[in-house]
Amino acid sequence: MIYLDNAATTKPLPGIKDVYSEYAQSLWQNPSALYAPATEVQRRMDEARTVLLNAFGGTGHKCFFTGGGTEGANTVVLRGARLKKGMNYVCGGAEHPCVEESFKWLEGQGYPVTWVRPDAHGVVSAEDVAGAVDESTALVSVMHVNNETGAKNDIAGIAARVKAKNPQTLFYSDGVQAFLRENAVDTSNIDYYTVSAHKVHAIKGAGAVFCGKSTPLKPFLLGGGQEYTLRSGTQNTLGAFCFEKSADYFMQEGTRVGETLEALRQAFIGALDGVEEMHLITPAERERRCSHIVNVAFEGVNGETLLHALEAKGIYISTGSACSSKKGKSRIAKALGMREEVAAGAVRVSFSPFNTEDEAIAAAAEMKKNIAQLRRFMRK
Amino acid sequence: MIYLDNAATTKPLPGIKDVYSEYAQSLWQNPSALYAPATEVQRRMDEARTVLLNAFGGTGHKCFFTGGGTEGANTVVLRGARLKKGMNYVCGGAEHPCVEESFKWLEGQGYPVTWVRPDAHGVVSAEDVAGAVDESTALVSVMHVNNETGAKNDIAGIAARVKAKNPQTLFYSDGVQAFLRENAVDTSNIDYYTVSAHKVHAIKGAGAVFCGKSTPLKPFLLGGGQEYTLRSGTQNTLGAFCFEKSADYFMQEGTRVGETLEALRQAFIGALDGVEEMHLITPAERERRCSHIVNVAFEGVNGETLLHALEAKGIYISTGSACSSKKGKSRIAKALGMREEVAAGAVRVSFSPFNTEDEAIAAAAEMKKNIAQLRRFMRK
Repeated sequence: MIYLDNAATTKPLPGIKDVYSEYAQSLWQNPSALYAPATEVQRRMDEARTVLLNAFGGTGHKCFFTGGGTEGANTVVLRGARLKKGMNYVCGGAEHPCVEESFKWLEGQGYPVTWVRPDAHGVVSAEDVAGAVDESTALVSVMHVNNETGAKNDIAGIAARVKAKNPQTLFYSDGVQAFLRENAVDTSNIDYYTVSAHKVHAIKGAGAVFCGKSTPLKPFLLGGGQEYTLRSGTQNTLGAFCFEKSADYFMQEGTRVGETLEALRQAFIGALDGVEEMHLITPAERERRCSHIVNVAFEGVNGETLLHALEAKGIYISTGSACSSKKGKSRIAKALGMREEVAAGAVRVSFSPFNTEDEAIAAAAEMKKNIAQLRRFMRK
Repeated sequence: MIYLDNAATTKPLPGIKDVYSEYAQSLWQNPSALYAPATEVQRRMDEARTVLLNAFGGTGHKCFFTGGGTEGANTVVLRGARLKKGMNYVCGGAEHPCVEESFKWLEGQGYPVTWVRPDAHGVVSAEDVAGAVDESTALVSVMHVNNETGAKNDIAGIAARVKAKNPQTLFYSDGVQAFLRENAVDTSNIDYYTVSAHKVHAIKGAGAVFCGKSTPLKPFLLGGGQEYTLRSGTQNTLGAFCFEKSADYFMQEGTRVGETLEALRQAFIGALDGVEEMHLITPAERERRCSHIVNVAFEGVNGETLLHALEAKGIYISTGSACSSKKGKSRIAKALGMREEVAAGAVRVSFSPFNTEDEAIAAAAEMKKNIAQLRRFMRK
C-alpha cells in the first residue's frame, strides 16, 4: 500500500501505542477530580499544552484542547469576536468548510462578511485582505495552508497588515494543514490559531486552539467549565497526550521534516515529467506553497476515475479533499475560477515524512500509465 | 487502589487495547475518503451505530457520533428545537451543567425557561413537568440518572405525559449516567438521548446522540457535513469503535451488570450501618435511583476532608461530581434545598461492574473510621 492522502488523515505513530498503554494503566482518571492521580493527569495535560505552544511558536499565547480542528474553528469564528451591531468580518475565499460555514452562519445572523478572492492557486493577497478591513472589522480569517491546493498564505505578513489598518481587528488562521509541517512563523499578530492531532500522526477527536492570553474568546461548548472555562466537557486526555507525542516527534526531527516532504514532492513531480496538458494547481514557488500537498489536474482525465485506477494498484490519493468529497464538486475549484475540465481532473496527492521517494516515484509512474490509458479511452 | 469514582470516569476495558491495535493497523483511514479502506471504516462506524442504538432500545431512532456528552447536550438543546418567537422551554432543576448552561444561554437570548424543581433527592415529578408544558413549549429536558445524587427519573413516563399535554413538544433526556447501567426504557416518546463513552469503560472524547429519524435537529458543529450533516469534523472513529466495544461488553453481561452494581451498593450501605447522623441523599427506592451512585453526607464531616482522608488509603471517591468540582459548591445541593451542613458533608461513591464487594466494604469501613476521627477532631 502506498498511502498518499496524508492531508485527509495520517496513520498513528508507532509510539502512540505506548501512549495508549500509559493512559490505560495510569492516566485515564478525570483531570477535574480532586485526588492526586487526577491532578497528575491535569499536570500532564499542562505539559502537553507547553509542547504544543512551543511548536506553534506562541508568544503570549495560551493553549486549550478541543475535539478537533472543526470545533476549534467554530469556537474562534463564532465566539472569538464580540457580536456588536455594525460589525463586519473578512474571510479568505477558499477556507476549509468549518471556517466558511461558520462565517456563513454569521452572515445569516446579519453580519456582513467580505470574502477575499484568492488567486488561481488559492493564495490570498495581504493587500486584498488589508483592503477589506475597515474600522468596524471584528475578525479576519485566512488559513495558513490550503487543504486542497496546498497554497500557503503569508499569515504573519497578512496579520501585520490587518493590525496596521485596524489594531482592534482580531486575526485568526486555521493552521490544521500547516502545523508541524511548515516552519513556525512570527505569531505576535496572530490572535487565534487552530490545529488538529490526526493530521500529524496522532489520533482523531483532538485538537487545540492557541489564542492570545488576553484575547477575547467565549466558550462554544457550554457546561462544566473545563479548559479554563473555554471548552466544557471532559477532555480527550488520550488525544491530547497523543498530540503531544506527535509534536515531540516533529520537533525532534526539526528541519528534516520539511526537507523530506520537499524531496518527496520533487521526486513525484519529476517523475510526472513529460505528461502533457498537466495543470499544477498548487503554486510553484516554495514561499507560496507547502511541501506536502500537490494538487494537479490532467485534461481529459476524470479525477475520481484516476483515483480508483490507482486504488486498484494499492495507491491512495484523493480528489479535492476528503472533507468535501461527499459534498459533490470542489467549492475550491469554483473559488479559484478553474475551468470545469481542469476541476474535474484535479487530484490531490499528500505526503507525510514517513513516505519514501520510491513510493512517490511509483505513484507518479502509475499515474502516468493510467493517464495515457484513460485518455486513449476518452478519445475513442 | 480502590477506585469508586466511576461516575466521573472509568478505566478502559482491557479489550480496548485490541481495538486500538486494529485501529492503528487498518482502521485509521478517514471515513470520508473515497477508496475502499476508508469505506470500510465508514461501514464499521455504521456497525457501531447499530450496536449503540440496540443498547438504547431505539425505535425509529438514528445515531450520530459526537465528541462527548457535553457536545451532544449542547447540540440537542441549542439546535434541537426551532427558535421561534414566543416559544418556551422546560428543564429539570438539577441537570448536568452542559444541559443547564445551554438553557441559560437560551434564557439569555430571551426565551423563557421553566425550571422544574426536583424533590430533596433529585427526582423530578412527571406531574410537575407536564404542568409546566403549554402549547408553546418547544423542548423539555429531564435527565435519566442524576450524576450527583443518583436519582433516576421515569423518563418514559415523563415523556408520555409531556406528549399527552402537547404532542408537538420535543423531549430530551441526558442519558450519560444511565446508558448501559440502567435497563433500557420505552424510547417511543424520547426524541433525543445523549450518551458518553468514557463513563462506560471506553475512552474520552466520544459520545453519541440518538434522535428520532424525522425529529428536527440542526448541526451545532459546522463544516464538512460528516455524520449525515448533523456533526461536522472528522469523526473520532477510534472513540466510536471503543464505545461499541464497551456496549458489546455491557450487552453481553446483560442483567448481571445491574445485579452486580446493586450488590455493591448493598454491601457498601450495609457496611455503613451504625453511623449516626448519616444522610442518604440518593433516593432509597430502587425505581427512583440507579444502583451505581451513592451520595451520602455525614454531619460534622467535611466532604472534601473525608475524600482526602480516604485518598491517603488509596480509596478514590468524589464530592458532588468531578464536572463541578472546580466550580465551588454543588449547584445540585442548592437545587435540592439541602441544609448547608449536609451539603458540605456530601460525598459521592460510584461503582462499576469491575468493583468487588470487598472493595465496597473496605471503603465503607475506612469511611466509618475516618468519620469517627474527624468528628472527634471537629468537636474538640
